[in-house]
Amino acid sequence: MRVEALVFDAYGTLYDVHSVVRRCETCFPGKGTALSQLWRAKQLEYTWQRSLMQRYAPFSQVTREALAYSCAALGLQLGEHEQALMEEYLRLAPFPEVRPALARLAGKKAILSNGSPDLLEPLVRNSRLHFDAVLSVDELRIYKPAPQVYALGPRALSLPASELLFVSSNAWDVAGAKAFGYRVAWCNRQDAPAEELGLSADVIVTSLAELPL
Amino acid sequence: MRVEALVFDAYGTLYDVHSVVRRCETCFPGKGTALSQLWRAKQLEYTWQRSLMQRYAPFSQVTREALAYSCAALGLQLGEHEQALMEEYLRLAPFPEVRPALARLAGKKAILSNGSPDLLEPLVRNSRLHFDAVLSVDELRIYKPAPQVYALGPRALSLPASELLFVSSNAWDVAGAKAFGYRVAWCNRQDAPAEELGLSADVIVTSLAELPL
Repeated sequence: MRVEALVFDAYGTLYDVHSVVRRCETCFPGKGTALSQLWRAKQLEYTWQRSLMQRYAPFSQVTREALAYSCAALGLQLGEHEQALMEEYLRLAPFPEVRPALARLAGKKAILSNGSPDLLEPLVRNSRLHFDAVLSVDELRIYKPAPQVYALGPRALSLPASELLFVSSNAWDVAGAKAFGYRVAWCNRQDAPAEELGLSADVIVTSLAELPL
Repeated sequence: MRVEALVFDAYGTLYDVHSVVRRCETCFPGKGTALSQLWRAKQLEYTWQRSLMQRYAPFSQVTREALAYSCAALGLQLGEHEQALMEEYLRLAPFPEVRPALARLAGKKAILSNGSPDLLEPLVRNSRLHFDAVLSVDELRIYKPAPQVYALGPRALSLPASELLFVSSNAWDVAGAKAFGYRVAWCNRQDAPAEELGLSADVIVTSLAELPL
């Protein structure tokens, strides 16, 4: 597969959100998994619903609101835990293979993320990973998988989408990038079933170390 | 609350999807609840994702694809069960209070549903409920909560949204209708927590018998 540059999703693709699960468990013993799963599901739902309603709010706000909903739904008292849980998003660790994989891969590399700059910029800085561009949907006020979001990558890298490899662990994000016209790698870390959205990845890997470049 | 006419969501608001849960359990003993929950969640996700990707597919197709995904995710062999499960959507029963509530409520009544005509029209016909308009998002090729969908109600009833009461059991649908400008009743049948989307219903009821009209 010949590609000139790579565009990565951030959460779950480069950065491991497992530390959020651990922190949820610390705050709410026995409920950490249930809370983190509902929180993540609601976070994404709100991005889609707000995009369709044309009521964009930054990812930091959506994430905070999804946390509030999830605690209410599970009967958990959020209170003072809110700040600690939200701060986890600023210091997620890259998956172990990310640093060597980025070093090995030729060509420019960019991030294209739902994360608003107030979340995304500290995250990238704290991780000490280098990218040629860190692109947020925030400037467009709409979330993935809207096509105009995926257009940010080709624009920033001055290359057509067909010469870019988009890499995501989120299968719906894979579909969105594919619909736009990228070459796409699905990093399926947990052997998830494919989504039934009528679009498939060009390549499926189980970690970024396997990217065929 | 003075309103001139009512616009109802269909699935879960007028029509009880519990028979789908029962049928899932008949097909996959012990897995009926898990399957029906994942199926419904995925069905909605696909409507939002396809709308944002600008890759509309009719609700019947989305529902079928969500079922295929859900069975794959749960390790269930769908095979011959597919037809029986899909057909449940054509003969959902109205909730017990719906018929007397519709008879009591003055003014015109419409349905505004994600359901494509191939699902929605047999459902309404089989239920022998009468509406002045049965409106599907299908003609617009985008799903709730996009504002243009909610515009179908005022157009069909020749009344401004502010004089219409939109009734839904889906809290995100309540938010979408409210964002558009309807008066909104949330039929919260199962004591769900409110969504954190920054928009609230004008009135909350636990069944359509309580609508304040």
